[in-house]
Amino acid sequence: MIKATVYVTIKQSVLDPQGVAVRGALHSMEFTEVEGVRIGKYMELTLNTNDRNEAAERVTEMCEKLLANTVVEDYRFELEG
Amino acid sequence: MIKATVYVTIKQSVLDPQGVAVRGALHSMEFTEVEGVRIGKYMELTLNTNDRNEAAERVTEMCEKLLANTVVEDYRFELEG
Repeated sequence: MIKATVYVTIKQSVLDPQGVAVRGALHSMEFTEVEGVRIGKYMELTLNTNDRNEAAERVTEMCEKLLANTVVEDYRFELEG
Repeated sequence: MIKATVYVTIKQSVLDPQGVAVRGALHSMEFTEVEGVRIGKYMELTLNTNDRNEAAERVTEMCEKLLANTVVEDYRFELEG
């Protein structure tokens, strides 16, 4: 069993409207020290394999095909176990 | 400037329908080694302060009040800078 933790973030050059909205909400709650907010996704995948190289290859493929929209998002992942 | 990275995850005992849907999609794409998927949020906050203790306290307050729904979600964060 390998646990893959995938982080998908919006590219720096792309506007993150969800982040802007959260920043606005935090400001209206007096958290005015918040200068910027970027929101991404965090995914934990449990893989039924023990081959780390194979897992890395397969998770890359999953990110490219489904988990991330590589036009506007970046991804990175960590394997564990 | 302090950068806070916040991870919000659905509690283990709570069903994660988004994760179930992604797992189903991965299976239909022949990624059958995926046993489970849990989806959470990943947030990067830039804080205009240099006091780490104060930042930790304020980010905890933001999580409790807005960023996480503590009934069904857990959160953790890291500070940097």
